Amino acid sequence: MKIGILGLGLIGGSLGYDLRSQGHDVLGVSRRESTCEKAMALGSVDQASIDLSLLAAAEVIFICTPIALIVPQVQQLMNYLPISTIITDVGSVKTPIVEAIAPAWENFIGGHPMAGTADSGIEAAQRNLFVGRPYVLTPDMTTPKTAILIVEQIVRSLGAKLYICQPEQHDRAVSLISHLPVMVSAALISACMGETDAQVLQLAQNLASSGFQDTSRVGGGHPELGVMMAQYNRQALLNSLQQYRQHLDEFIYLIEQENWVGLECKLQSTGKNRPKFVGKF
Amino acid sequence: MKIGILGLGLIGGSLGYDLRSQGHDVLGVSRRESTCEKAMALGSVDQASIDLSLLAAAEVIFICTPIALIVPQVQQLMNYLPISTIITDVGSVKTPIVEAIAPAWENFIGGHPMAGTADSGIEAAQRNLFVGRPYVLTPDMTTPKTAILIVEQIVRSLGAKLYICQPEQHDRAVSLISHLPVMVSAALISACMGETDAQVLQLAQNLASSGFQDTSRVGGGHPELGVMMAQYNRQALLNSLQQYRQHLDEFIYLIEQENWVGLECKLQSTGKNRPKFVGKF
Repeated sequence: MKIGILGLGLIGGSLGYDLRSQGHDVLGVSRRESTCEKAMALGSVDQASIDLSLLAAAEVIFICTPIALIVPQVQQLMNYLPISTIITDVGSVKTPIVEAIAPAWENFIGGHPMAGTADSGIEAAQRNLFVGRPYVLTPDMTTPKTAILIVEQIVRSLGAKLYICQPEQHDRAVSLISHLPVMVSAALISACMGETDAQVLQLAQNLASSGFQDTSRVGGGHPELGVMMAQYNRQALLNSLQQYRQHLDEFIYLIEQENWVGLECKLQSTGKNRPKFVGKF
Repeated sequence: MKIGILGLGLIGGSLGYDLRSQGHDVLGVSRRESTCEKAMALGSVDQASIDLSLLAAAEVIFICTPIALIVPQVQQLMNYLPISTIITDVGSVKTPIVEAIAPAWENFIGGHPMAGTADSGIEAAQRNLFVGRPYVLTPDMTTPKTAILIVEQIVRSLGAKLYICQPEQHDRAVSLISHLPVMVSAALISACMGETDAQVLQLAQNLASSGFQDTSRVGGGHPELGVMMAQYNRQALLNSLQQYRQHLDEFIYLIEQENWVGLECKLQSTGKNRPKFVGKF
């Protein structure tokens, strides 16, 4: 199959490796000539160009640009494509993307492969990045069955775990387990830095250990990524934050009331429930 | 030197190994006969007994019992000791312990070695547990200089990083970097479990990855430990929680207001400040 990839970064480049190794003919487009050259030299794509028209020949196109560029790039791309071309994206928020593209392109399916590393760019691309990782697809009522089947087949061929849901469900789920932790974690760093006694602050910095390290990790990550989550998934994230605040207030209340039985009960419940979320990979 | 250890668990047992290897004569007391036998068989102590009077011969005694037993055990122990005996404890909260013991025993110095593992008990004890780890001592104005010097010397001999501060400063610092993360992290698990849409909850559990895993780790730990922190460090923890809540509300406000520049600024600051707390060990 001829498969196009628009955006040759970590995700696009990694997709290219796996799709080529399955015998697909991979056409890549990047904004930078140098990235095109690197992608070809590395063997992530068969052909690459800075010209969108290269993708006219593709049967399926993966949009792997940064999230802000997905909608404008697809709008441009449409001019080059026959209506049979299947388009799917890899953006980490789905509702605004599906709402913008689905009405304009019938054969569009939102997607979100939940695989990533701390690195980015074509140099960070790797083979088998998606193996065992979740890959969410968010078709809607109007998406043609054939298009869904074809994208599903490709996703399965990557070794990913396929989940299908509505864009809104995806966005609520990731707001809880991915975007909320960033804000919760960032607020922890922020609160500690807000300590007004300089000696206590210095001591806190000296004594911080693995507990602080793990809880603060995602709050100390790329600021642009955190802003992007908040921008694109604003309402779901605000709901999650309000939900979080209520649960935090319950903990505060239990401690204020010296309700140690109640607190132990809550902590037993969190300890019991955490394994439902972790330890799968 | 004859050194006593009351409580032969992870910390007491590990102390025993290191002190014996330096040539000290280590006397251990545990509530259980079987623990005494194990500690001797493992080589963590020279002698062990369930009888507090064994410690009468010690020049320095480390109290390594669970935090709730420190004060009552020291009160009993005092009856067996000459007033020259130096007592120090390893409890993770210092103010209530120092306030209870210091007026009754001049040669008392609060201590907190910040070394631990997920395991507990004499079987979990290990050599060099304290190397490179913080070890806080909290003498007060009335603590004799000689007593401080002797305990300091022992702490340094363990390879630990020595910090000296007031009990209240210690408790504020650990409330920020150790006790607050537990509540922040537990509230995250709690908020996610509070999701009322069963499909979204299931999806969240399927999609949760390393970000959720790290941020939720300490909130899914031993409930008794979390309750102990809250009980013994209640006021400092409540202050930290209120401080945290204010910073969380700032994040919520920035997102509500769509103040993306402000949010990016905050996240840049958390990213810049996190390394001041982590990466030391």
